[in-house]
Amino acid sequence: MPSIFSLRTTDGSARRGTLALHHGTVQTPTFMPVGTAATVKALTPEEVRSAHSQIILANTYHLWLRPGKELLVEAGGIHRFMAWDGPILTDSGGFQVFSLEGRRKIDDDGVTFQSHIDGSTHRFTPENVLAFEGALGVDIAMVLDVCVKLPATRAEIEASVRKTTDWARRSREAWKHPETQVFAIMQGGLDRELRERSAREIVALDFPGYAIGGLSVGETREEMYATARYSAALLPAEKPRYLMGVGTVRDIIMAVDCGIDMFDCVYPTRCGRNGRAMTRGGEFSIRNAQYKRDFTPLDPECGCSVCTTYTRAYLNHLFRANEMLGPRLLSYHNIYVLNDLMREAREAIELGAWSAFRDRVLTATAL
Amino acid sequence: MPSIFSLRTTDGSARRGTLALHHGTVQTPTFMPVGTAATVKALTPEEVRSAHSQIILANTYHLWLRPGKELLVEAGGIHRFMAWDGPILTDSGGFQVFSLEGRRKIDDDGVTFQSHIDGSTHRFTPENVLAFEGALGVDIAMVLDVCVKLPATRAEIEASVRKTTDWARRSREAWKHPETQVFAIMQGGLDRELRERSAREIVALDFPGYAIGGLSVGETREEMYATARYSAALLPAEKPRYLMGVGTVRDIIMAVDCGIDMFDCVYPTRCGRNGRAMTRGGEFSIRNAQYKRDFTPLDPECGCSVCTTYTRAYLNHLFRANEMLGPRLLSYHNIYVLNDLMREAREAIELGAWSAFRDRVLTATAL
Repeated sequence: MPSIFSLRTTDGSARRGTLALHHGTVQTPTFMPVGTAATVKALTPEEVRSAHSQIILANTYHLWLRPGKELLVEAGGIHRFMAWDGPILTDSGGFQVFSLEGRRKIDDDGVTFQSHIDGSTHRFTPENVLAFEGALGVDIAMVLDVCVKLPATRAEIEASVRKTTDWARRSREAWKHPETQVFAIMQGGLDRELRERSAREIVALDFPGYAIGGLSVGETREEMYATARYSAALLPAEKPRYLMGVGTVRDIIMAVDCGIDMFDCVYPTRCGRNGRAMTRGGEFSIRNAQYKRDFTPLDPECGCSVCTTYTRAYLNHLFRANEMLGPRLLSYHNIYVLNDLMREAREAIELGAWSAFRDRVLTATAL
Repeated sequence: MPSIFSLRTTDGSARRGTLALHHGTVQTPTFMPVGTAATVKALTPEEVRSAHSQIILANTYHLWLRPGKELLVEAGGIHRFMAWDGPILTDSGGFQVFSLEGRRKIDDDGVTFQSHIDGSTHRFTPENVLAFEGALGVDIAMVLDVCVKLPATRAEIEASVRKTTDWARRSREAWKHPETQVFAIMQGGLDRELRERSAREIVALDFPGYAIGGLSVGETREEMYATARYSAALLPAEKPRYLMGVGTVRDIIMAVDCGIDMFDCVYPTRCGRNGRAMTRGGEFSIRNAQYKRDFTPLDPECGCSVCTTYTRAYLNHLFRANEMLGPRLLSYHNIYVLNDLMREAREAIELGAWSAFRDRVLTATAL
């Protein structure tokens, strides 16, 4: 299997690479905005691109339920359906399904669950999830895994590792779409021995890329960083590493520092819809009274079309008046900021200036 | 006073003109999208422009309450505040205030009312409304008028005509901003004699433009068309004529046929937010099940970016999934369609082909 990833340089544990996918090449480290239902909320694909996004994430669970596989295939795949011609990664739906407590039943073969939309019954297996992702024509398909919420007993975590490995093996065998790269997912909670076991088992299956799953699920920030750090080191250097569900500036910077290449999170768009601005000087709510007469840009250091066109006073007005344009503009800006952060991170790694960059960003976000 | 309007040609009663305003020249007949709170709902100014809008409307009542005059002046006027550099017309707030039944009290000097936002008390007079509009720096300011809901007694309508004329006279005297053109408003309900009286009185005051008010307020379509027709003919040919609150394809075509030059309505954007598509083949709700697997454009005859990029199936999906992109895209398309209709209307009048064009559009919308 030819490698899709090339590691261009490292600085400490931080990595600068390129990821060659069917719909284009992605410069890493990279942030992937989330387009749950085949739309990055409030934004057009054109805007997602102009905010410098290289690859987006879509959710198998949501797309499976609505609009469903048959329609997406009829549409000519997810790219044509949503008019985004860049790379797309789909999660496996595992995380969403296992969050449906009381409405899902796991067995060795897969998981049966009730739709949150209409209560109808559905079943995921490693094979049918991968077939779904392949039929959509995505660039990267995540395998179905078993995620546990923390805290959990060692036995629960061990069982999740065992099943995740077994399902990864079945996914490897079921993988049929050459244009879709399949990534396996490491589990193991905060247990180093189980993380090592999970890594050893999935790495032996020789996937083109690996994700660190089971984090951002209830543990502390410090536990997450520590686990991400040793987990990343358990993965092969020549393959891309993806930390799932991470999206604040601080978490992303820490994760890059751990040697992670890819991230996704609803954080920037969810914040944007709620009026929370992510800026180079930290986060704040644009709804606050102090911005009512503030005629400066949202982020004076930002070159995005929102910051070069509108004032904080206008954005404050839009949110106070419940105008849809507010969520739109802040979602755009927040994604732009994260993508710009990743660009700067890539440059810093290339220049061997990563630790200084990291420390500068962490200090600024703490203000 | 130099004329701001030049009537280029007519075809029957339909008129083709140009309107020279401080922020640009407007080709008429023209449709003005509504930007109530200094934003055309869901759209950026750039999009409003790219949908070929030449002039937009904003609401004095809403802007007075939020964000208020002081802030708008501090912002450098409404154009800078909302980042729209084209012409803007503001209504006088009369229509909104008189709709606040039980929460407003009219006297000879003005009207006192309670805010729908926080119940606070405010007062409009012809003078302070015009001062507000002038301070905002709008291109066209409507005078404060007294609008009556239909049906109404002859005495009520007569009183509204009397006060509207009196307030128009006071507005004429109070007019101080040379860059802002002030338009008077005709009242008179469905009473031809009162319409004649209202027209005679306000025309004598020599305003640069005139609106036909008090329609689209409870009367039938046929009553509206008949009244608009004789009312338009009562206004001077060399000045622009504006029919307030009109925005369906049928109403606009009928109004152009009556000799009206300008229209505004929330209709296209409100429809857009609700999933109602305005197309050259008539209106329909994109939410309907029949569009679920319809991979054709919203309007196959439309050249807008929505119709050239997305399918009905995708738009149906966005509305079913309550995704904000749906309202955005349909609002854009609907405004584009109306602006395109106006462009075609202007061409038809120039070519002396108005009546054929009118009949073709009326037939298509009836389907």
